[in-house]
Amino acid sequence: MITRVYLDHAAATPVRPEVMDAMLPYFCQRFGNPSAVYDLGGEVKEVVEAHRGKVARLIGGHPPGVIFTSSGAEANNLAIKGAALANLKKGRHLIVSAIEHHSVLNSARFLEKFHDFEVTFLPVNQHGLVEEERLQRALRPETVLVSIQHGSNEIGTVQNLAQLAAICRAAGVLFHSDAVATAGQIPISVGDWQVDLLSLSGPALGAPKGIGALYFRPQLRLVPQIHSGIQESGRRGGTENVPGIVALGTAAELVQGELEASSRRLGKLRDHLVAGIGEMVSCAIYTGHPEQRLPGHASFCFEGIEGEALVFLLSRRGIYANTGSACASKALKVSPVLGAIGLNPEMAQGSLVLTLGPEHQEGEMDYVLTELPPAVERLRSFSPVWSKKMAAGSGGSQA
Amino acid sequence: MITRVYLDHAAATPVRPEVMDAMLPYFCQRFGNPSAVYDLGGEVKEVVEAHRGKVARLIGGHPPGVIFTSSGAEANNLAIKGAALANLKKGRHLIVSAIEHHSVLNSARFLEKFHDFEVTFLPVNQHGLVEEERLQRALRPETVLVSIQHGSNEIGTVQNLAQLAAICRAAGVLFHSDAVATAGQIPISVGDWQVDLLSLSGPALGAPKGIGALYFRPQLRLVPQIHSGIQESGRRGGTENVPGIVALGTAAELVQGELEASSRRLGKLRDHLVAGIGEMVSCAIYTGHPEQRLPGHASFCFEGIEGEALVFLLSRRGIYANTGSACASKALKVSPVLGAIGLNPEMAQGSLVLTLGPEHQEGEMDYVLTELPPAVERLRSFSPVWSKKMAAGSGGSQA
Repeated sequence: MITRVYLDHAAATPVRPEVMDAMLPYFCQRFGNPSAVYDLGGEVKEVVEAHRGKVARLIGGHPPGVIFTSSGAEANNLAIKGAALANLKKGRHLIVSAIEHHSVLNSARFLEKFHDFEVTFLPVNQHGLVEEERLQRALRPETVLVSIQHGSNEIGTVQNLAQLAAICRAAGVLFHSDAVATAGQIPISVGDWQVDLLSLSGPALGAPKGIGALYFRPQLRLVPQIHSGIQESGRRGGTENVPGIVALGTAAELVQGELEASSRRLGKLRDHLVAGIGEMVSCAIYTGHPEQRLPGHASFCFEGIEGEALVFLLSRRGIYANTGSACASKALKVSPVLGAIGLNPEMAQGSLVLTLGPEHQEGEMDYVLTELPPAVERLRSFSPVWSKKMAAGSGGSQA
Repeated sequence: MITRVYLDHAAATPVRPEVMDAMLPYFCQRFGNPSAVYDLGGEVKEVVEAHRGKVARLIGGHPPGVIFTSSGAEANNLAIKGAALANLKKGRHLIVSAIEHHSVLNSARFLEKFHDFEVTFLPVNQHGLVEEERLQRALRPETVLVSIQHGSNEIGTVQNLAQLAAICRAAGVLFHSDAVATAGQIPISVGDWQVDLLSLSGPALGAPKGIGALYFRPQLRLVPQIHSGIQESGRRGGTENVPGIVALGTAAELVQGELEASSRRLGKLRDHLVAGIGEMVSCAIYTGHPEQRLPGHASFCFEGIEGEALVFLLSRRGIYANTGSACASKALKVSPVLGAIGLNPEMAQGSLVLTLGPEHQEGEMDYVLTELPPAVERLRSFSPVWSKKMAAGSGGSQA
């Protein structure tokens, strides 16, 4: 019998056992400060550098360009504010897509408020894609940075990153991408794609909360956002989180080896789930891009219900899912991402996001297909909006 | 036989076994995101809040005023920049002591460079104390914040925090203190002392690297420095580092229970060590305040040698110590803290900092007293400066 199907990997993941094993010695035994001049410090410093290399390899970059941070959110903050403040002489214009994570959007808003920046929030099409011509038109001589996420945790869409980066490179504008959702899920090459800055999160790879990384093209200037000593090539102060760094490096190495097989496997499971929901639930929209999306990601809007109620009801049946993005879930009633792809607030309210993990089997997807449709039906039976719609006699599927 | 005496607790400490045990379930089992709406998230949220309370109790504050950060350095950044930017209407003048940690000094310099702040770097007396009249005279109508560390990791001096805070309170100026060195070593009460903001570090208490906290007086406004979702009462974005938070709370509770006994014990060991060094090594200065100092802290400058060479030589004998502050050790040749207490660069070069931990016994101090004097002698025998001094015939002790 299935007792728990955890489908909220975008919000939190368990640490992988191999990662735990690699990390454990650095809490109590090998606890030295990497900046210390004696051997206990030097040994740890070497370990940090070896794991920096593993993170760099996952994304096709050079090791010196990896800065360890405390989260993907901090990496995004450092990329946006750090690069903007280091290039004030060029100008005060930023471009970010309308469907960025809060850490990007709110960093941009901080620059608007405190540093007189002008920010262009670039619209996306109905599938959540940033169109190349639109980016091209938004660029100005005073644009210092463009930030477009690689993949969306909320609608699953994966951008044409290489093409977008090339447009920026040709215009001499720095290009940053939040790859928290994509790293370890699909291949990334900052070198081939000529991406200047790229953010990663530890938990998304099977490392613990409290560790992330920002990749920067070597020599690129960044104003630190945590000012302190000269750690992390002077770009991020504070004692290095050695266990976290070892965990992130180990996780990066593991996911890199498994990426191809795991991506194929997750994609198949997800397709099975999506096809089933499409058949069994009426008036549902499969949000984001239908094909160009994260392999383990399925996202819907169900008419006539509230996503939060559905998440709650499913959790009573052992199914853990999300509505909108994890950190926004308590902040906002309606997701700006769903607004940006053209959904009206009523439809957007019924958002459900399912993010799969390596532990899943087809049987668990079938369990979701048994439990989800009646849960939606049950909520709809309480909904005055839905009753009115049914009375008017329009119940066809949109999925 | 003694094989290792670790006397660099200010730079790094092993995680306490009780803290490890408390933290471990939150990596692989209880891994939910505290912001998730279902039970796996809600349970973790409760755990986070319970541990927030434990941190608050250690420093005599209210739980809602504790913000978890990734380090003491991040806490200092948030205090200085966050409070300054939230109070621009009042003015653009800051006061920090000349012997602050780099995370305070460099946050202040950032505000000078990017936000037109004027910063007063307040001198200290020969013992490293900020004198009350000096602080009083430095205050201006446009002063928004005063930041004075509670205790110095480099020279051990503990400030008269209540008196300094009272001066600021009377003038209507916010008062912040970096208590990374003192928390868990001596009693702290933000409530009684009316301190507005206070920084803590996890590793200093026996929690792992990667966790810290900032206490703020409830209702006090702070501009976040990591912008993202509404975590940590909207003052610090990014998914909560749950294992780190559990570790910090557990460590805070443990050290609170042991504080009095451990402080007495460390003080006795330290006094034994200091007396021995004073007797056995000539031309040594005991830096910082002779009495009003951290219990487990001994710091010296030895004439005619380089501190880094002494640290290296001692490490070959199993004694791990520091020269200057951990994170500055590679950045600067001569410590600005030692300059601020009036030492000339030659003397300041011979700095040695010994920071004790709970594992130490008197026998280990005796081992240091056997090894340290000949190590100093050996380095002096190679030193042209020392030879010249000896030739001139002035070798008396200053300790």
